[in-house]
Amino acid sequence: MSRLLKKVHSPYVIRSLNFAQLQELAGEIRQEIINTVAKNGGHLSPSLGVVELTLALHYVFNSPVDKIIWDVGHQSYAHKLLTGRYKEFGTLRQIGGISGFPRPAESKHDVFGTGHSSTSISAALGMAVARDLKGDNYSVVAIIGDGAMTGGMAFEALNHAGHMKKDLIVVLNDNEMSIAQNVGALSGYLNRLRTDPMYSRGKEEIEQILRKLPAGPTLLRLIEKLKDSLKYLVVPGMFFEELGFIYLGPVDGHDIKAVTGVLQRAKSIKGPVLIHMLTKKGKGYKPAEDNPDKFHGVGPFDVASGEVKKKNAPLSYTEVFGRTMVKLAGSERNVLAITAAMSGGTGLTKFARLFPERFFDVGIAEQHGVTLAAGLASGGYHPVVAIYSTFLQRAYDQILHDICLQNLPVVFAIDRAGIVGEDGPTHHGLFDLSYLGSMPNMIVMAPANENELQHMLATALKCHGPVAIRYPRGAGVGCEIEDELKLLPIGKAEVLREGADLTLLAVGSMVGKAEEAAGVLSGMGIEATVINARFIKPLDEELILKYATITGKVFTFEEHVVKNGFGSAVLELLSSKGKKEVMVHRFGIPDCFIEHGSHSLLMEKYGLTVQQAVNFIAGQCVPRKVTKKLKLVFD
Amino acid sequence: MSRLLKKVHSPYVIRSLNFAQLQELAGEIRQEIINTVAKNGGHLSPSLGVVELTLALHYVFNSPVDKIIWDVGHQSYAHKLLTGRYKEFGTLRQIGGISGFPRPAESKHDVFGTGHSSTSISAALGMAVARDLKGDNYSVVAIIGDGAMTGGMAFEALNHAGHMKKDLIVVLNDNEMSIAQNVGALSGYLNRLRTDPMYSRGKEEIEQILRKLPAGPTLLRLIEKLKDSLKYLVVPGMFFEELGFIYLGPVDGHDIKAVTGVLQRAKSIKGPVLIHMLTKKGKGYKPAEDNPDKFHGVGPFDVASGEVKKKNAPLSYTEVFGRTMVKLAGSERNVLAITAAMSGGTGLTKFARLFPERFFDVGIAEQHGVTLAAGLASGGYHPVVAIYSTFLQRAYDQILHDICLQNLPVVFAIDRAGIVGEDGPTHHGLFDLSYLGSMPNMIVMAPANENELQHMLATALKCHGPVAIRYPRGAGVGCEIEDELKLLPIGKAEVLREGADLTLLAVGSMVGKAEEAAGVLSGMGIEATVINARFIKPLDEELILKYATITGKVFTFEEHVVKNGFGSAVLELLSSKGKKEVMVHRFGIPDCFIEHGSHSLLMEKYGLTVQQAVNFIAGQCVPRKVTKKLKLVFD
Repeated sequence: MSRLLKKVHSPYVIRSLNFAQLQELAGEIRQEIINTVAKNGGHLSPSLGVVELTLALHYVFNSPVDKIIWDVGHQSYAHKLLTGRYKEFGTLRQIGGISGFPRPAESKHDVFGTGHSSTSISAALGMAVARDLKGDNYSVVAIIGDGAMTGGMAFEALNHAGHMKKDLIVVLNDNEMSIAQNVGALSGYLNRLRTDPMYSRGKEEIEQILRKLPAGPTLLRLIEKLKDSLKYLVVPGMFFEELGFIYLGPVDGHDIKAVTGVLQRAKSIKGPVLIHMLTKKGKGYKPAEDNPDKFHGVGPFDVASGEVKKKNAPLSYTEVFGRTMVKLAGSERNVLAITAAMSGGTGLTKFARLFPERFFDVGIAEQHGVTLAAGLASGGYHPVVAIYSTFLQRAYDQILHDICLQNLPVVFAIDRAGIVGEDGPTHHGLFDLSYLGSMPNMIVMAPANENELQHMLATALKCHGPVAIRYPRGAGVGCEIEDELKLLPIGKAEVLREGADLTLLAVGSMVGKAEEAAGVLSGMGIEATVINARFIKPLDEELILKYATITGKVFTFEEHVVKNGFGSAVLELLSSKGKKEVMVHRFGIPDCFIEHGSHSLLMEKYGLTVQQAVNFIAGQCVPRKVTKKLKLVFD
Repeated sequence: MSRLLKKVHSPYVIRSLNFAQLQELAGEIRQEIINTVAKNGGHLSPSLGVVELTLALHYVFNSPVDKIIWDVGHQSYAHKLLTGRYKEFGTLRQIGGISGFPRPAESKHDVFGTGHSSTSISAALGMAVARDLKGDNYSVVAIIGDGAMTGGMAFEALNHAGHMKKDLIVVLNDNEMSIAQNVGALSGYLNRLRTDPMYSRGKEEIEQILRKLPAGPTLLRLIEKLKDSLKYLVVPGMFFEELGFIYLGPVDGHDIKAVTGVLQRAKSIKGPVLIHMLTKKGKGYKPAEDNPDKFHGVGPFDVASGEVKKKNAPLSYTEVFGRTMVKLAGSERNVLAITAAMSGGTGLTKFARLFPERFFDVGIAEQHGVTLAAGLASGGYHPVVAIYSTFLQRAYDQILHDICLQNLPVVFAIDRAGIVGEDGPTHHGLFDLSYLGSMPNMIVMAPANENELQHMLATALKCHGPVAIRYPRGAGVGCEIEDELKLLPIGKAEVLREGADLTLLAVGSMVGKAEEAAGVLSGMGIEATVINARFIKPLDEELILKYATITGKVFTFEEHVVKNGFGSAVLELLSSKGKKEVMVHRFGIPDCFIEHGSHSLLMEKYGLTVQQAVNFIAGQCVPRKVTKKLKLVFD
C-alpha cells in the first residue's frame, strides 16, 4: 500500500521524486498516520495538517545537516515517517516504541526535543548562532503554530532573533482561518511582491525617495491616512517585519509546489525570515477536518466512521471538575475560570458556554493567565486557573511572586498530575507538589477520588489565599458523586482504616492503591492504618504523628517524584517533631525522567502497583500478632 | 525645604496645584529621593525618571479608586511620596520601614505588589475585567518600561488585552533614546493626528474608501511601496496597534503639561490605549543622568560628588565570577555567556567587551535566554547562563523541559542566592535549591567562599549535563583567590573539622558560620565535625552517612527555605538509608516570605547568626567527654 513510503529509508530519497510523486507520497503518509493513530491514539489533526509542509521541508533542506525544529512537536509524525522510522511507526507512543514527540535520543533528525509550546525559535536561534560561531554553513528552520506564537517566549525569541540578524527561517504554521481572511484578497499579490528577490533592495530605495520628499501637511495627512488602512491589508506581515523578520506569505501549506518554492526563496535570503503558511488541521481525513479539536489528541478510533472507541469508564476527574465549576458558578458570583488554550481539555467547555463573561481563554500564555488571575483576585473575584500540571510549570514565578506573595485567593485546578501515559516525559505532571510545596501561603490538596475533587474545589473557593488541587488524567475511580458539596476542614486528613502494624499514608491517586494494599496485607496478618492525606500542605500534623508513633512504620504513597514530594514533607514533619524512631519509606517516582507508555505499564516499571507495594512492605514487617489489642492501642 | 511636598498628605491635594506648582513639587520630590537614596541606597535612576509622570498620573487619576500599577515597581518612590508616605520615607528599604517596591499591605495606593518584570499589564487587565464585571467605573493604568516590555508575559498580556478590548491604559515608559530617534521627525505630527478625537472614526472611513478603489496593479504597487517606507515612520506605534491598542505618543515624559494632556485623552478613549512616554533615567541629578546604569540600584553615595561610599570589602562573588569567566573563555573556545539585561549586575561587563561574539544579552527574557542556551548547547557550545536566583524562577519550565530533559551541558550561574537584603521579598533568592533539586540530571553546587566559586565554575564547565551554582549577593569572605583553577570531584563534600559530638553540615554562605559555631562550641566542650557540603545534588552520601552515624546528631545550615531545601535532602538520604537513629535539625529560612531589611538584621531575625546557632545546639547536646578517643572513632 505504501509503495513510495517504504522506499524512503532516509529523507534524501524524497529529493529524487517529482511533484506528482510527492503528492502520492503525501497520501501514503496520511494513510499511515490515520491507521496508526486509529490504533494507538495520538495527535492526529496537527500531524495531518503538515504533511505537505514536512515533505517540502525534507525536499528543500538536507536533514540532519540542516536543522528542522518542530515547536510542541505533536505534528512531527510525517517527519518521523520520512526520517527512517517508517518500520517502527506502528509502535508510536507505546512503551519502548516511537515517541509522539521529537526526541534527539530517537533519531539524529530530531535535533531538538519538544513537547511544551513556544520553545522552537529560541532553540533555533541558539543553533544558528552556534553555526556562525563555528563558521559552518547550514539552514535552521523552526516550525511553530499560530497558537504557540501567542506564548510569550516565542515573542522574546522573535525580538532577539530580529536583533541578532542571523540566517534563520521561522515557518508560522497558521491553521486558524480567521487570520487568513484578515489578510484578504491582496494576499496573493503581496506574496509575489514580497518574495521577489528585488524586494530587499527596493525597500531601501523607496525609503530614500520618501525621505527627500517635502514633508508638507497635505502629503503627511495622505500618508497617515493610507498607513492606517494599509495596516489592515498587510496583517500580520507588518508585525513580524517590525521585529526584524522578512515576511513571506501567506502560502497555501497544502500546495507542495508553492511550499517548496517559498522555502527555497527563504533559504536564499540573508537574515531572519518568517514564512506565513496556511494549513488545515486534520487535512485529508474528513472527520478530523470537520472536528479538528476532537482529533487534536485522540484515543483509538474507527477509521471509517471516525467514532472514538469508547471505554465503559467512570466519569473523568476533568468532567467532574467541569460540572462542579458550573454548579459553583451558579451560586457564587465571584467564581471565574481561566484556561490557557485548553477549554476542552480542562473540562470548561460548558462553563464557557453558560458563563461566557466569566470565562477567559488567554491562549497559550500560562504566565499571563496566572497574573491575570492575580489582577482579578485583587479586583474582588475568585478565579480558578485550570492548567495541566506540566504546563503550569511555565508560570512558576507568577504563582510565587504574584499570587503567593500577595496571598491572593486564586485556585489552581491542576489536571494531568502524575503519569499521563503515552505523551511521555514532556507531559507527565510529576513536579507540582515539589515546587508548590515550598511556596509560602500555598495550600495544596489532592483528591483520592472524583467525589472528593468536587468537595475540594468547593473548599478551595472558601479559602482566602492560594490553593492548588492536583488530580490525575482520565477516569475517576467510579465512586458515587454526592449531590451536595461539602467543605473539608483545611489541613485535615482522613483515616480510612486502622491497624497497629504500620501506617500507609497516601495522597491523591495512590489512596485507592494503599487501601487495596492494606486489604492484601491484612490477609497476610499485617494490619495497616490507611490515611488519605488530602492535604500535602499543610499536613495534618497531629494525625500523622499519632499514627506514626503508634505504628512506628510509615509508608508514603504519591504519584509524583519522591524528591521534595509528599513523602519528604512527612520526613520533614517527623524530623521537626523529633520523631526519629519512626521508619519511613516513600513510594513514588524516582529522580529521573519517565518515558512514554501506558499508565499501568509505567506504574509497574517504577514499582507502584499494589502487589509490588505489598511485597515490599511485607518484607519490612513481621506481623505483630497483637491486632486483637488494636482497640486498646488506639483509645 | 519640601514646602509643597509636606502638604501632600494625600494625592488629591495635587489636583489643586497649577503647573508651576507641580513643577516646583517635582523638584522637591527629586531632592527628597536623592537625599534618601544617598543615605539608604535604592533605585535612583528609575525613580528620578518618572517624577513628572507620577505627578501627572495623580493629577489626572483618582488613586486608589483609579488603579495605578507600577511594573517592576523600583520607580515608585515619587508615588510613595505623593500617597501619604512622605513622613516615613526616610525609612525607605530599612527593616520595618517603607518598602522599595509597591506593597498593598503598605498602602491602599499600592494596588498591586511588584518586583519582577513585565507583570503589570496582566494585573491591570485583570482589574479592568473585574471592574466591568462589577459594573464599576474607574481607570486602570499600568506603567511599564521599554525593558520590561521585552519580557514575554508583557506580550502575552498585550495580545490578550487587545483582544478583550477593555478600557485600559498602558504607559510605555521609554527611556532608551534609540527608540525615540527611530520615530524621527514626523513623531510630533503623528502624535497630534493620532490623539485627535476624530482618529478612530477617520480610520474606518479611509478603510472603506480604499476597499472600493479599483485594485489595479499600479495602485497596489504604489501602496506596497508606501507601506514599506511608512512602516519606519511609525515605529513602534504600528506594532502596538496591530495588537489592538490605540497608540498615543511619543510624549516628552518630563513635560507635565504634555503628560497630563495625553493621560486625559487616554482616559476618554474606549478600549486599550498605549501611551509612548519618553523619559530620561536619572533625570534631574547630573551624576545619574550621566551614568544611569550605576545609579539604577545604588548603595549610599555622596550627593555633591555622586561618589558611592565604598566599603573596604573583599572581592564580591559577582566579581570573582566575572573574572573567572574571562579566564575560562580565554582557554576554552566553547564557553559562552548569556545574561538577561544584567551584564553589569552579573559581573559580565568585561567578558562582553573581550568576547562580544560569545556574549548574549537577551533583554528581560529569562525564558528565551535559557532555551537559547539549550540551542547553543545542541550546537556544540557550553553556555553559562548568569541570572539572579529570583529571576531564574521565570525560566523554571525551560530549565526542566529544555535543558534537564535533554541533559544538555548548560551552566546556571545563580547570583543573589539567599537573602539579598533591602530589596525584600520579591528579590530574595530563597527557592532555587528547592526547585532545582527535584529536576532530574541537574547538579547543584554552592561555594563556601569566592575562591571555591571559581573552582566550581571550572568544574561545571567540564560536566556533560546541566549544572547550577548558587552564590550570594555581595562581598566574599576575603579568602585568597588561587591562581590555578581546580576541578572539584562531583558530589564530594569537604570535611573542615572533625569532632565526635555532632556534625554541622553546611552549604554555601553558611559554611563559614558553621565553622565559627564549631569553634565556639569547642570552647564549651562540645566537639563538632564541620562539613562543607559543596554539592546539594548529588549529595556526598558516603561522607554524610559516615559522620551522621558517628556523631548521631546532624545540624544542617543553608541560606534557603528549609522546605524542600538542603536539609530536607539530608533527611531524604538518611531515611532512604535507614539511618533513623540520627537526629537532624535544619537551620534555614522558615516557610514564609521574608521582608526587606539589612542582611544581618534579617539573619538574626530568623535565628541564623552564629551565636543563635550555638545557643540552640548547646541546648541539644551534652558534651560527651570522649573527645580524646576521637582519632580512634574516625579511623
